[in-house]
Amino acid sequence: MNLVPGWIRTYQKSWLSGDLIAGVIVTVMLIPQSLAYALLAGLPPEVGLYASILPIIAYAMLGSSMTLAVGPVAVASLMTASALQPLATAGSPDYVALAMVLSLLSGGMLLLFGVLRLGFLAHFLSHPVISGFISGSAVLIAVGQVKHLLGVKAGGSDVLDTLVQLVHALPGTNLVTLGIGAGSVLFLVLARRSLSPWLVRLGTPPRLADIAAKLAPMLAVVVSTALVAAVRWDQSAGVSIVGAVPQGLPQLGLPSVSLVAVGSLWLPALLISLVGFVESVSVAQSLALKRHQRIQPNRELLGLGAANVASALSGGFPVTGGFARSVVNFAAGANTPLAGVISAGLMGVVIAVLTGLFHYLPHAVLAATIIVAVVSLIDIQTLREAWRYDKADAMSLLATAGGVIAFGVEVGILMGVALSLGTLVWRSSHPHIAVVGRVPGTEHFRNVARHAVTTEPGLIAVRVDESLYFANSDALLDTVESLVAAQPDTHYVLLVCSAINQIDTTALGVLSDLERSLAQRGMALLLAEVKGPVLDRLQNTPLGQRLEGRVFLSTHAAFDFAHRRATAPSNPSPSLAR
Amino acid sequence: MNLVPGWIRTYQKSWLSGDLIAGVIVTVMLIPQSLAYALLAGLPPEVGLYASILPIIAYAMLGSSMTLAVGPVAVASLMTASALQPLATAGSPDYVALAMVLSLLSGGMLLLFGVLRLGFLAHFLSHPVISGFISGSAVLIAVGQVKHLLGVKAGGSDVLDTLVQLVHALPGTNLVTLGIGAGSVLFLVLARRSLSPWLVRLGTPPRLADIAAKLAPMLAVVVSTALVAAVRWDQSAGVSIVGAVPQGLPQLGLPSVSLVAVGSLWLPALLISLVGFVESVSVAQSLALKRHQRIQPNRELLGLGAANVASALSGGFPVTGGFARSVVNFAAGANTPLAGVISAGLMGVVIAVLTGLFHYLPHAVLAATIIVAVVSLIDIQTLREAWRYDKADAMSLLATAGGVIAFGVEVGILMGVALSLGTLVWRSSHPHIAVVGRVPGTEHFRNVARHAVTTEPGLIAVRVDESLYFANSDALLDTVESLVAAQPDTHYVLLVCSAINQIDTTALGVLSDLERSLAQRGMALLLAEVKGPVLDRLQNTPLGQRLEGRVFLSTHAAFDFAHRRATAPSNPSPSLAR
Repeated sequence: MNLVPGWIRTYQKSWLSGDLIAGVIVTVMLIPQSLAYALLAGLPPEVGLYASILPIIAYAMLGSSMTLAVGPVAVASLMTASALQPLATAGSPDYVALAMVLSLLSGGMLLLFGVLRLGFLAHFLSHPVISGFISGSAVLIAVGQVKHLLGVKAGGSDVLDTLVQLVHALPGTNLVTLGIGAGSVLFLVLARRSLSPWLVRLGTPPRLADIAAKLAPMLAVVVSTALVAAVRWDQSAGVSIVGAVPQGLPQLGLPSVSLVAVGSLWLPALLISLVGFVESVSVAQSLALKRHQRIQPNRELLGLGAANVASALSGGFPVTGGFARSVVNFAAGANTPLAGVISAGLMGVVIAVLTGLFHYLPHAVLAATIIVAVVSLIDIQTLREAWRYDKADAMSLLATAGGVIAFGVEVGILMGVALSLGTLVWRSSHPHIAVVGRVPGTEHFRNVARHAVTTEPGLIAVRVDESLYFANSDALLDTVESLVAAQPDTHYVLLVCSAINQIDTTALGVLSDLERSLAQRGMALLLAEVKGPVLDRLQNTPLGQRLEGRVFLSTHAAFDFAHRRATAPSNPSPSLAR
Repeated sequence: MNLVPGWIRTYQKSWLSGDLIAGVIVTVMLIPQSLAYALLAGLPPEVGLYASILPIIAYAMLGSSMTLAVGPVAVASLMTASALQPLATAGSPDYVALAMVLSLLSGGMLLLFGVLRLGFLAHFLSHPVISGFISGSAVLIAVGQVKHLLGVKAGGSDVLDTLVQLVHALPGTNLVTLGIGAGSVLFLVLARRSLSPWLVRLGTPPRLADIAAKLAPMLAVVVSTALVAAVRWDQSAGVSIVGAVPQGLPQLGLPSVSLVAVGSLWLPALLISLVGFVESVSVAQSLALKRHQRIQPNRELLGLGAANVASALSGGFPVTGGFARSVVNFAAGANTPLAGVISAGLMGVVIAVLTGLFHYLPHAVLAATIIVAVVSLIDIQTLREAWRYDKADAMSLLATAGGVIAFGVEVGILMGVALSLGTLVWRSSHPHIAVVGRVPGTEHFRNVARHAVTTEPGLIAVRVDESLYFANSDALLDTVESLVAAQPDTHYVLLVCSAINQIDTTALGVLSDLERSLAQRGMALLLAEVKGPVLDRLQNTPLGQRLEGRVFLSTHAAFDFAHRRATAPSNPSPSLAR
């Protein structure tokens, strides 16, 4: 693997303007988002800025997507808060240090999975479960931010508790804060809905109008900050503001990792890695396909892993590829990860010299940004489609969303994993198994339940339409035993192996037991159409040796064999010397 | 469902002698085992006896196996000890109460799984993983019992720690205890290896000799107890004995369940249920098949669940179907669960009037019984076979065994579940996908990589040999995109759906995205050989509507369509206005 990424080696001058414009636009989105998601994670605002510099550069070096925008995102920030709040006081130095450890663990796991080429781990989660998880998290996040809009203190352990606390705290609402917050929410919603069409009517090109609409949060930040600074509402009306944000680039260093911290953080780190990876890959993939490009899941693991390690080393917290910023990056014309590197550079300038500008930024505006962003993640469409198409998938979605809302993100995502895997195991436990017979006058064999075919007396021919392994071999055994019980005059059980690409150790054991148990009852197991690689491995086993002379190239040959044996007067028994 | 079990309704007089003999013989095995496994679980000896009465009767009412012997078993006892030792002092009333709660939870879960017909849950574990788990547990158990043979105190948190402590404690060895213990081990090993052939040489019928050999532990118990009682080695030499065992049948009652206990015990209870169920079903199944009988996994869940609830209500601890006793029960001629009911009755008599006999029973003999029993569970054969047949399965086995030995049963079994599911997800993520072409002059289509077939220019025909769902739909997308990238002049991508029995919501989304993304690039997605039920559901979706006119009955028809379009001069484009 060349250490210099492909996009640098093949960089073309014509790509530069797109990368430059996208880099600037994403930075303008990234500034309020990074501050807001740090707030959501319970971290000081500068941590959000730190997580938006080196991680982007690290991803640019190792990742495979040309347009993914890496950095702080809503769901990972919520999961960070949920992992750290039992361990330390939000915002304290201990809390910040634990966030770095969490990011380091998550990055280390992603790198390890990438090196081991475990990209398939993303398949531990089905789409309905992911959709339910994100919708549930969005509700959790939005409800959790309402206190900032009201300017009150309230923080329950779950959604219901938080709502009750909010109702109790309602009389203490700071009306100026509520004005700023509600005004921002209204402005952001209107901007999201109407700004782009309005700009188009004014003659702006549609793509530019779309992008401009995404910059509304920055406008809200600028206007509200200027307003608060001018009127000094922080003093006169008690509006909560961000306050002093330390100026200067993040210091590099390894977070101090204790075994105790690792013990309580490995599971959250694993879940953040898994969710972040799945989310990120699906965004990166959908964008790449629009330009006939490909992404490589295993390289995405490396890229995201490096980004999280870089975040940990530079005072940041868990990051991943974000949906909204990636879409804008793509639409604004980013051609390569250079757009991200430009963003990172601009963020570096911001944190080195401009943090003073955030002093009067009201928390209520950040909360408004978060609420409007996450409410758009609530995905009713997928639920509706799933409900119409597959009730079981819709139930998984609802259960995961409900789990997140009622018990928090960790229990929710674990329920989601359990539901996804439960579905997978259930489906795998029920392979399609058909009894086959001969299409009269041909050498073709088809399902007796669906075709007019002839069977051979004393022979049961079974075709399994899947590889045999631990999750489905019992189903084969059950089917064969039921068939044999229903036809006591059976002499031969033929397994048509045309769809079996692999037989694992468990299934080998089951076949072995089946053969022996049939033999004890005077029946013989026959195999037909065994694929080359399967046969090669089978022949070295005791079962393979016992089956010698009973493995047929075609189903036709096996039927012929059974027919000849049944009609040969001297040898009606199925005992097979050889 | 009739409340009176089938075996009672159809009971025949001729079955009685077999059931009676088996019941008596199993009782003679069960007495020392129940005492020993209570010791292993860290419980007073009478708890082992309690767990050998009502649970057997409960299983007899609901279970489906005619020969399974339910009661305390080694692995479940070890898992009980491992779950309870962090929560209470072994042998204390709190510890006993928690063991009942554990049994109640485990029984409740099994009943729930049974009612929900979740017998397929057994497929969460592959055979190599189960074999590794049992072998690892056997090592853990055997090492943990050595202290009783030496008559010393030593109890590490893991195997290595225990070994170190044993070495340190070695100088304090009680030589008389060691004599009794080592003598018992030697006797039991010799009995297991040579007693049966020796009895056969003396003229005993082989089956009887086999059964007699299994009764050696009882002989060791009787002789050593008599010896200690006669010489009073408990006083003169400090040999540790069982002591007073409370006499009288167990009192019935619900254990007091606290939420805290449920919080710490639900996971161990789930793991004990899962392992116990898998173990029990595999024993019951292999015995049933020998007699052309069937067992029903969902009824086994009910039977074992009822057994555990009965155990909890009568002062017992988690039980399941045991391997050794079931085999003896079968060999001794048990015809129905009446054999078990007879055992339970005899155990009731023992505990009501005979517990005084166990007073001088040395702990060293029970430890010897456990060690000899579990060492025989160490399964090198499966490892050797797996190593030869499938290295990945062998590695799973070793990792699970290593996990149990190094980190304990819970971490070990969780590693095993993770490895099993990881294999399942990995396998499911890699479905067999073939590019197909026409067998010249026919309407048959075969894999281009394996047959001499002709393809249609501008058409890529892909056959997926599995149902499409969340774990494998990305693999299809990847394959199609690679093929399209390699053949830029493609106009049609044909998906041959002959092996697709189901398309889940996730896969539907992937297909939908694929169709749209192909359309953007001027390519059309075609489907052929879609099965009826799949087509019915597809037609109600937006994708189904977009695909109208592009779903073909046969691959042949789809090839013809592509060919006509390619050769029609007026309409070379793939845009399909129906």
